[in-house]
Amino acid sequence: MNYASIFFILGRLLEVEAIFLAMPALVSLIYGEMDCLAFLAVAVLCVGTGLLFSRRRPEKFAIYAREGFVTVSLGWIVISALGALPFMITRDIPVFTDAFFETVSGFTTTGASILSDVESLSKGCLFWRSLTHWIGGMGIFVFMIAILPATGSQNMHLLQTESPGPEVGKLVPRLRDTAMILYKIYFAMTLIVIIALLLTGMPLFDSLTLAFGTAGTGGFAIRGDSIASYSALQQVVIAFGMLMFGVNFNFYYFLTLGKSVKEAFRLEEVRAYLAIVGVSTLLIVVNSWKHFSSAFDALNKSFFQVSSIITTTGYGTADFDQWPTFSKIILVGLMAVGACAGSTGGGIKVSRIQILFKAYRREMNHFIHPRLVRGVRMNGKIVKEETVSGVKGFLATYVMVLFVSVLLISIEGEDIVTNLTAVMATIGNIGPGLSRVGPSLNYGFFSHFSKFVLIFDMLAGRLELYPMLLLFSPATWRRK
Amino acid sequence: MNYASIFFILGRLLEVEAIFLAMPALVSLIYGEMDCLAFLAVAVLCVGTGLLFSRRRPEKFAIYAREGFVTVSLGWIVISALGALPFMITRDIPVFTDAFFETVSGFTTTGASILSDVESLSKGCLFWRSLTHWIGGMGIFVFMIAILPATGSQNMHLLQTESPGPEVGKLVPRLRDTAMILYKIYFAMTLIVIIALLLTGMPLFDSLTLAFGTAGTGGFAIRGDSIASYSALQQVVIAFGMLMFGVNFNFYYFLTLGKSVKEAFRLEEVRAYLAIVGVSTLLIVVNSWKHFSSAFDALNKSFFQVSSIITTTGYGTADFDQWPTFSKIILVGLMAVGACAGSTGGGIKVSRIQILFKAYRREMNHFIHPRLVRGVRMNGKIVKEETVSGVKGFLATYVMVLFVSVLLISIEGEDIVTNLTAVMATIGNIGPGLSRVGPSLNYGFFSHFSKFVLIFDMLAGRLELYPMLLLFSPATWRRK
Repeated sequence: MNYASIFFILGRLLEVEAIFLAMPALVSLIYGEMDCLAFLAVAVLCVGTGLLFSRRRPEKFAIYAREGFVTVSLGWIVISALGALPFMITRDIPVFTDAFFETVSGFTTTGASILSDVESLSKGCLFWRSLTHWIGGMGIFVFMIAILPATGSQNMHLLQTESPGPEVGKLVPRLRDTAMILYKIYFAMTLIVIIALLLTGMPLFDSLTLAFGTAGTGGFAIRGDSIASYSALQQVVIAFGMLMFGVNFNFYYFLTLGKSVKEAFRLEEVRAYLAIVGVSTLLIVVNSWKHFSSAFDALNKSFFQVSSIITTTGYGTADFDQWPTFSKIILVGLMAVGACAGSTGGGIKVSRIQILFKAYRREMNHFIHPRLVRGVRMNGKIVKEETVSGVKGFLATYVMVLFVSVLLISIEGEDIVTNLTAVMATIGNIGPGLSRVGPSLNYGFFSHFSKFVLIFDMLAGRLELYPMLLLFSPATWRRK
Repeated sequence: MNYASIFFILGRLLEVEAIFLAMPALVSLIYGEMDCLAFLAVAVLCVGTGLLFSRRRPEKFAIYAREGFVTVSLGWIVISALGALPFMITRDIPVFTDAFFETVSGFTTTGASILSDVESLSKGCLFWRSLTHWIGGMGIFVFMIAILPATGSQNMHLLQTESPGPEVGKLVPRLRDTAMILYKIYFAMTLIVIIALLLTGMPLFDSLTLAFGTAGTGGFAIRGDSIASYSALQQVVIAFGMLMFGVNFNFYYFLTLGKSVKEAFRLEEVRAYLAIVGVSTLLIVVNSWKHFSSAFDALNKSFFQVSSIITTTGYGTADFDQWPTFSKIILVGLMAVGACAGSTGGGIKVSRIQILFKAYRREMNHFIHPRLVRGVRMNGKIVKEETVSGVKGFLATYVMVLFVSVLLISIEGEDIVTNLTAVMATIGNIGPGLSRVGPSLNYGFFSHFSKFVLIFDMLAGRLELYPMLLLFSPATWRRK
């Protein structure tokens, strides 16, 4: 293990975090809050520690697979631990476990909160809370690669580890350019949402914070009832905004290359994703009909909740824990499926589900015609058998982490639906679950132990399981 | 599709069923019940239809993979439909859906009942109900192959389709001999349980019926409180009996070959199975401590329930729905895991879980040392990659069937825990679940539609998913 290289990268990462911390400091200053000092102090701490670690580039700089996994998982833990400090210093969230939970929930774009009264937070803290969603959405390592001078092709391991999906590739030959393109698209799309929200008459502060949560598919809101008390128009903008960020960014990249929308829609994953959203919305409209006041209300609320859950955002305009079981099971299914690979959304990812389904169909065919050997195809190309096997292994690992987590938090004794959906909502980076972690409630009541299990799940979910599992695997730390 | 061959085999199967139907007829006769006539009438119907179908062996007799799957799944449906008739004729279960549900539950060794008052059934019906467990436990096709003159190596497809496990092989070169050996072991072990129960002072009728349920890992009892009102000694005998039938039959075959117990224990699956039972029992003893009256009571009840659930039997001596969540989650986990492959138990099977876990460890190692290529080993031998991939695919298919089934029965609107555990308890061939399908309740309240979904799940679980899925797949019925 090349520790020097790991520390070097982590140091750089802290410098990046300091830049981001300056923003809530500015917001606090504008609103005349003392919290400004807390953000500045932590920013200084980050820069100091960062410079200490990354003062000199190690002579034998090397980030191989192992170092890549460790760096990324440690990096996310470190930025969350430091990002939690402002909440503690301002005493908005005085207990470390809670502040850490909230910050991990922010960076991983989960949006699960331990706060029972979010409106009592200072403007600075609210801004920082939402900003973590935006930072975590596209990935802080991706950001680092985009803005800092290239450190060679070895950063590929960092990008691959942080980016979601069964097959992560570079859009363009140079890694830094790929990261740049992703952030440019991300920034432009976020700007569109901010402008759209401002046009609906939403105040600037709300527009910024909610756009951050929409873009990162996070879900932290700044009102106690999430998005329920905003106007129907504003809800529609946010619903479509979330949907947009759940789309594979390859789609937008194709558009920037001048390809037609029709061509971009050749991406099977995007079509499947939109089909799932459409069908789920309709089924919920029909099944939960009597919970709505009108046809528009039914469509608006169903679409909003479906878009929020499948993109793993977690904003809410209705308490779906009150809906009939069939609708709830659909939402639980969407929690597991998640958004497209290469989007800011979490979950298993639509393309993985597609590959599983296609592999299933192939195996069924193989039973009937044992001599027929066929590959699994996506977007007209044959998917490598290695990838197909990897996707199946991912599902098995997902089920294993899910079961062990549910078992561990069950020691506390909450009911099964609470435990199951709390784990699904954290590992899928959604936020709200059902029962005691339903949309109108929060995660504050869990014990410290259960909160740490869920923190693990949020990080594991965001980094697609393996980096966090490897971090806690003895084999990773063994000398060859 | 060679329909003539399929009908021929199905005809033979009905003749076998007629033989078995003679047994409850005899029991009814002994107890002086009119039900005797119902069993005889159905037996005659079976023989008549059977002879009609299998009068002449088709000239081009051929059972390939496709015919094998269709024959086995159709066969199980047909014997269940005919086996349901005595319940309807005697008016013990007058509605077809219910009688069919109960019979499928019997043959698949699920033990989920729609009856609220089992003690009101006639002796003949109680006997038939338990006998179906014994027939289904080792498999009716296996029985047919054992007793009827060999029809060539093509029956291999039937044996493979009906026998559980990731890798089904012949014990000895001749197929008929393999089937014979399996049934001899099965018969001898059942006899041991019957004698042991008689020695505890249990009446003959109870000993026979409960032994059938124990051997087949079924779970239909003849008292309203299942096994709770039997003596502690009788409970211990049944608990160890169930455990014994959840062991891979290769273990016993090794013993009959004169190998030592130590050698037989080299089977990794058996060791893992016993380890899971031990650890689960201890965890439940500790977690549910205050639900028990003494240390013996704690150990007795915990071990009984663990043995009953992991072997997918479903007998009960305690209402585990009242236990703390942690204990319940352990039991739900055991429902999914199930017993050993090559046993009469259902579920995913311990060896599949082992292969998944070993494949997981290998993949973790592969992340750290990308150049290292290693095989997954079981019992000292390398498992074929095809099998590893097949096991992963099996898990994915299991999750898919589970989700779709829960979604379908959720239309009815029961709570999530009821729906989830009803599907897990039927697809795993266990019987009782939690909440409204808990150990002290039954499946009678479900709608006809939901009952048919659960019937599908029971059959799919018993036949390890694919035969039932293929039966309903259009590709199976398409001409080449």
